[in-house]
Amino acid sequence: MGDMVAGLAEEMEAMGRRARAAASVLAVTPTEVKDAALRAAAAAIRANLSDILAANEKDMVAARDKGLSPALLDRLLLDPKRVESMARGLEDIAERADPVGAVLEDWTRPNGLRIQKVRVPLGVIAIIYESRPNVTADAGGLCLKSGNAAILRGGSESFHSSRAILACLHQGLRAAGLPEDAVQSVPTTDRAAVGHLLGMTAHVDVVIPRGGKSLTSRVAAESRVPVIYHLDGICHTYVDRAADPAKALAVTFNAKMRRTGICGATETLLVDRPVLSTHLPAILDKLIAAGCEVRGDTEVQALDNRVKAASDEDWDTEYLDAILSVKVVDGVDGAIDHIARHSSHHTDSIITEDPATAERFLSRVDSGIVLWNASTQFADGGEFGFGAEIGISTGKLHARGPVGADQLTSYKYVVRGDGQVRP
Amino acid sequence: MGDMVAGLAEEMEAMGRRARAAASVLAVTPTEVKDAALRAAAAAIRANLSDILAANEKDMVAARDKGLSPALLDRLLLDPKRVESMARGLEDIAERADPVGAVLEDWTRPNGLRIQKVRVPLGVIAIIYESRPNVTADAGGLCLKSGNAAILRGGSESFHSSRAILACLHQGLRAAGLPEDAVQSVPTTDRAAVGHLLGMTAHVDVVIPRGGKSLTSRVAAESRVPVIYHLDGICHTYVDRAADPAKALAVTFNAKMRRTGICGATETLLVDRPVLSTHLPAILDKLIAAGCEVRGDTEVQALDNRVKAASDEDWDTEYLDAILSVKVVDGVDGAIDHIARHSSHHTDSIITEDPATAERFLSRVDSGIVLWNASTQFADGGEFGFGAEIGISTGKLHARGPVGADQLTSYKYVVRGDGQVRP
Repeated sequence: MGDMVAGLAEEMEAMGRRARAAASVLAVTPTEVKDAALRAAAAAIRANLSDILAANEKDMVAARDKGLSPALLDRLLLDPKRVESMARGLEDIAERADPVGAVLEDWTRPNGLRIQKVRVPLGVIAIIYESRPNVTADAGGLCLKSGNAAILRGGSESFHSSRAILACLHQGLRAAGLPEDAVQSVPTTDRAAVGHLLGMTAHVDVVIPRGGKSLTSRVAAESRVPVIYHLDGICHTYVDRAADPAKALAVTFNAKMRRTGICGATETLLVDRPVLSTHLPAILDKLIAAGCEVRGDTEVQALDNRVKAASDEDWDTEYLDAILSVKVVDGVDGAIDHIARHSSHHTDSIITEDPATAERFLSRVDSGIVLWNASTQFADGGEFGFGAEIGISTGKLHARGPVGADQLTSYKYVVRGDGQVRP
Repeated sequence: MGDMVAGLAEEMEAMGRRARAAASVLAVTPTEVKDAALRAAAAAIRANLSDILAANEKDMVAARDKGLSPALLDRLLLDPKRVESMARGLEDIAERADPVGAVLEDWTRPNGLRIQKVRVPLGVIAIIYESRPNVTADAGGLCLKSGNAAILRGGSESFHSSRAILACLHQGLRAAGLPEDAVQSVPTTDRAAVGHLLGMTAHVDVVIPRGGKSLTSRVAAESRVPVIYHLDGICHTYVDRAADPAKALAVTFNAKMRRTGICGATETLLVDRPVLSTHLPAILDKLIAAGCEVRGDTEVQALDNRVKAASDEDWDTEYLDAILSVKVVDGVDGAIDHIARHSSHHTDSIITEDPATAERFLSRVDSGIVLWNASTQFADGGEFGFGAEIGISTGKLHARGPVGADQLTSYKYVVRGDGQVRP
């Protein structure tokens, strides 16, 4: 037993060292070589469709035996359309601009020193995720594009699927003459492996957990390596007294019901008291007709007897379901105050035709994304034009909001002189 | 005892809540108000010179009684010139551009959504430092300028000096109508207070340790709050075969000897084998004449019998003293390889007249600052044109290199629409 634990630690260390070595190659790999690897990996995924589906079927059988929920089974399932979408995703990443080498700032000091701030990769990124096998391709592709080596740790449920997809990524890397160690996968479902990853500060530069709150909170609590993540998406839509009723209806409905299970879905609707009886009834009708459960404060309940009573807990709950809490507030400052106390600083939106009110909300709400007259469901790297995203960060350090290839980089200062010494 | 511990925990929590409240005010405070507070604080420092010197004398007496080293006593000492330089530092910060509100990116999506990436403060910054009392003014000023609330925890040696300086900052804040809680100081020298600070993830957004390696490594190891820091400055100067001898001499001497106790001082000189006997002797003569101890590998010892033998440990040592380790390498790749194994990724420099060799070094050395034909002692926010700096980061996440007011910010995405819903 002791030997096995020591064996795992050594194995993880060795994996980290290989990742670091691959990272130093990737950091200076030209764009066209990285893009060739991405395109070759996409081709390999298409060519190996039947192998990938067979591997996935193994995972599905085991998952059904374990009695996984239909929602989890659906996340795990691959079909030809989903596999094609993975291949297309890698090609999309290849088509986008390379963040590495971009000159972010460039200035010359009075002493003649020319200073450039240049984007560089972070180095080695560990991604810890749950059952979605497509994360293997997305995360591997984004790390490769941004010049980072990746260490992937997928959920045990998707073990065979992920391995088949990883084999395709390796085919792509080989075809472009890049080391397979650029994308490695932890070869065991032993949970102790995650513990080692989270402590490998010498070999891992950042950890990104992708999955439910229990996964991300555990990673955030245990990791010695910096973590980019979000825990909750308790997003708000505020309908102001100066809101256009039609916009308020359309945006609120979309923000809640387009997809209820994503982090950018609105969980709490705040309504300005003067428009409670003018704007809210139509919104409630449409939501309830679509099967949404509404939980409101006493004023909202008084307005519509289909509304259930909200408890204190509701204002701090991310339902990820067709449930909405609704509260009456006094003006934009009431909304800002409620959001300051209950938001997870992810995404919050105001509906108003009054620009001054909107600007007050946009400047005072301390969230990664603040919107005016638009749905909170736009909280997505693709919708921002970033291409693929690896997640959304609610942290304020480094990356905030959608995390795409650009956000997987750091920078260095390159200083060119002619023999300058400091006085 | 249990009560006292609970009391401290509550006191720290209350301090954190007050800081958070002040931060929400500072985040939307106009530039001119923040600058007025900085200028009023500078005036208060000048007006209270005798109080500050009297407080400092109390600290000095206690420090002499404790038998502190002359170097530590010098760091602690304030005189009229040093006090004036603190006041002038605050005015310098006031004169610089306000980072908050700067639009970093601005684009419009095909659906008409306009997205701006806007600089915002981080929120609450805790600064943990040692005996230099001027950090109280510098750190408080930089945090205020960047719209952040500060919680300062100075060393017990500078307790009275820091308190007198803090009183001047509070005078400045009051004069500008800003809350005194914008800059708070932990009112106890109890070390347990630091433990609380490092765990207050709800109220503190980032911790910045300023001091020796034992302080920073303890903070980095214990903190649950993200930390911006550097541990070591093991900086290298590499003299390439195509180096101009005069530049190599001047830059190397400055990089080592201008000030030996700062993190940007060169600790190891790497010399390309072909120029060992042509370029190195003059460098060694000048260094040794200036009192520098030189420790070299066998080839360097063979060249000059005043050179002592370097041990393996020397290549990983930050001397912070008039000591230099010197090693022969084979070309730029030999230098890059040595630096990859021994650098602390802080600052490294190449001396060469060959642009291709320089670019190879600049792109492959993975350090926050890489220089060509210039002294590593330029690793400083002031020399970069950032104005005051709070330190230098060797981390890759968030801020790398000199940390000035700009680096004490995050960003948010402000999205303006006209009723857009996500398809």
